[in-house]
Amino acid sequence: MSDARQFLKLDAPFRMMRGVLAQVEIAYETWGELSAAGDNAVLLFTGLSPSAHAASSPGDPSTGWWEDMVGPDKPIDTNRYFVVCVNSLGSCFGSTGPASIDPRTGEPYRLGFPTLCLEDIANAGHAVIESMGIARLHSVVGASMGGMTALAFAMLHPGAAEGVLLISSAARSLPFSIAVRSLQREIVRSDPAWSSGNYPPEEPPTVGMRLARKLGMISYRSSAEWTVRFGRERATDEPDRGAFGIDFEVESYLEAHAVRFIGTFDANCYLYLSRAMDLFDVCDHGGSLEAGLARVQAERALIIGVETDFLFPLAQQRELAEGLKATVPDLDFRVLPSIQGHDSFLVDMDRFRPAVASFF
Amino acid sequence: MSDARQFLKLDAPFRMMRGVLAQVEIAYETWGELSAAGDNAVLLFTGLSPSAHAASSPGDPSTGWWEDMVGPDKPIDTNRYFVVCVNSLGSCFGSTGPASIDPRTGEPYRLGFPTLCLEDIANAGHAVIESMGIARLHSVVGASMGGMTALAFAMLHPGAAEGVLLISSAARSLPFSIAVRSLQREIVRSDPAWSSGNYPPEEPPTVGMRLARKLGMISYRSSAEWTVRFGRERATDEPDRGAFGIDFEVESYLEAHAVRFIGTFDANCYLYLSRAMDLFDVCDHGGSLEAGLARVQAERALIIGVETDFLFPLAQQRELAEGLKATVPDLDFRVLPSIQGHDSFLVDMDRFRPAVASFF
Repeated sequence: MSDARQFLKLDAPFRMMRGVLAQVEIAYETWGELSAAGDNAVLLFTGLSPSAHAASSPGDPSTGWWEDMVGPDKPIDTNRYFVVCVNSLGSCFGSTGPASIDPRTGEPYRLGFPTLCLEDIANAGHAVIESMGIARLHSVVGASMGGMTALAFAMLHPGAAEGVLLISSAARSLPFSIAVRSLQREIVRSDPAWSSGNYPPEEPPTVGMRLARKLGMISYRSSAEWTVRFGRERATDEPDRGAFGIDFEVESYLEAHAVRFIGTFDANCYLYLSRAMDLFDVCDHGGSLEAGLARVQAERALIIGVETDFLFPLAQQRELAEGLKATVPDLDFRVLPSIQGHDSFLVDMDRFRPAVASFF
Repeated sequence: MSDARQFLKLDAPFRMMRGVLAQVEIAYETWGELSAAGDNAVLLFTGLSPSAHAASSPGDPSTGWWEDMVGPDKPIDTNRYFVVCVNSLGSCFGSTGPASIDPRTGEPYRLGFPTLCLEDIANAGHAVIESMGIARLHSVVGASMGGMTALAFAMLHPGAAEGVLLISSAARSLPFSIAVRSLQREIVRSDPAWSSGNYPPEEPPTVGMRLARKLGMISYRSSAEWTVRFGRERATDEPDRGAFGIDFEVESYLEAHAVRFIGTFDANCYLYLSRAMDLFDVCDHGGSLEAGLARVQAERALIIGVETDFLFPLAQQRELAEGLKATVPDLDFRVLPSIQGHDSFLVDMDRFRPAVASFF
């Protein structure tokens, strides 16, 4: 398997919001070329589960998680922009996280990893662009958790990005989304195989991860989409269903997605990233929403929300747009009627391509 | 503990939609007096989890699950009406269900219980009123699963109810609600203590039931309610939270509710009733929605829906109201702006009392 990842190793102690790591490695990928003036860089933060592989490249021709969006002549046009996507600190695709070896013990950090905050992920991303000598980004971009991280970046490093693009994101998590994610984490922790976080890497809590992923899928899409897509269609290719097996096509769909997910994502990393989303709150930066958002020193911002998103509902993007209006001179707020809920930015490319292109 | 339950024992084999039971016992409670003309009886079907104890009475003074709605001078006025509430067939509060002893084996039915359908619950309710010599009810009433059951009753026994009151209900489950319930069932089945349904009654799968109940609570309320009620308030009285314990008040709330639920409800009964909701479809009665609803021979109907209900969204009550318009001469459809989602009929009594009273 080819690999386009690069790694930034920070040997100095890395200060987190609630702890310190003796050393940190951050995996990232890049596309395009940094201009001589160094003014065409775009930093992309990801949602909870993706790696830094946003798009294919000569070094890794496999399809990236935002393949339609990043590349030559695509909305984030790598003929014009130098795009950097970081794997989040705390994740498990090359960046230091709970599954990484703690140099003090020679064992994985597991629950010994400090409490993770989105601010830490943002700071790790900042270290990457700093190491490249980039003083000011063309823009910082993120969707979902990545949007919250991009916002944290813009608050913590005022002026480090000329533009901010936040998609299906929020200034802080609502109690509803906290409840959903808290339950997902409890489901993982209730799997006996989790063993208080001490599962051997080759025997992860697959049952808990499968169930948590199904709850994730339920919250990422929309009821309207599934009504159109599945209705009450019965599952056809399920062999022995047993007393409480799969009856309906929508159940088959969830099963297929969940099975694909497990094995790719470390359970402890998932727990840390999930909780980091709950903990994030713009109000922690200055005492109020207004004060927090006032720290963003960008020239331009685009906020995109989706009507059918019930995990990060439209009111949250409206709140961001209205709050940023006070400080960002050129602010655009777009509402998309996509039917795929929170996940729309990954699937409804016909609507998202032009919306993102308008910013670039 | 006092008990106002009465029991109807049916010794003849009880034909279910997908099986037969050699004998069936149905628990029910009554309030008020049947008139000499026998024309003032109201049959009440429950949601998934309640018992037949809808309201207090001299025989059982404890608070019932619809205490504000049923009683003297209340919206369903027991000075005027003879109210019968049945514990659903398949449940565990006195009616025969998976936790009951199978007379053939002397052991609980467990997964040997036939597949349960809401039509079976409706027919068991019909047997109760038949045993009382009631030929025609003033009305059949139900909310949530109880509304689907009341609808099944009205289709299977045309003319047996002059009026139909369906609250936060539907003609069939949407794939979104199927997904939520399917995941709840899988969570229970994934608890090793479930033991393929063969857990000893004193060692039930409490972890799975607790988690499934939390998912239930998430789907029964609304995001808007929790935003107002909890916001991002931190939990205060949680002792040792551990690495992934409770941070937020909304998590405490879910925990308290879930803990109250476990121990009261049998896991296998829960699985059967939950799946019965998924399987129910008006279209099974005549081949289409129109044909199914056309079987309802009632004079009056009231359909109530709640704007913030995302488990049984308003479009489903509108579908019922529009479908029944063709056959029910006096049809009323009310939309309530309650903030408590699907559970509003249990908590937003200020709005629900007058709405239900308008029907009686």
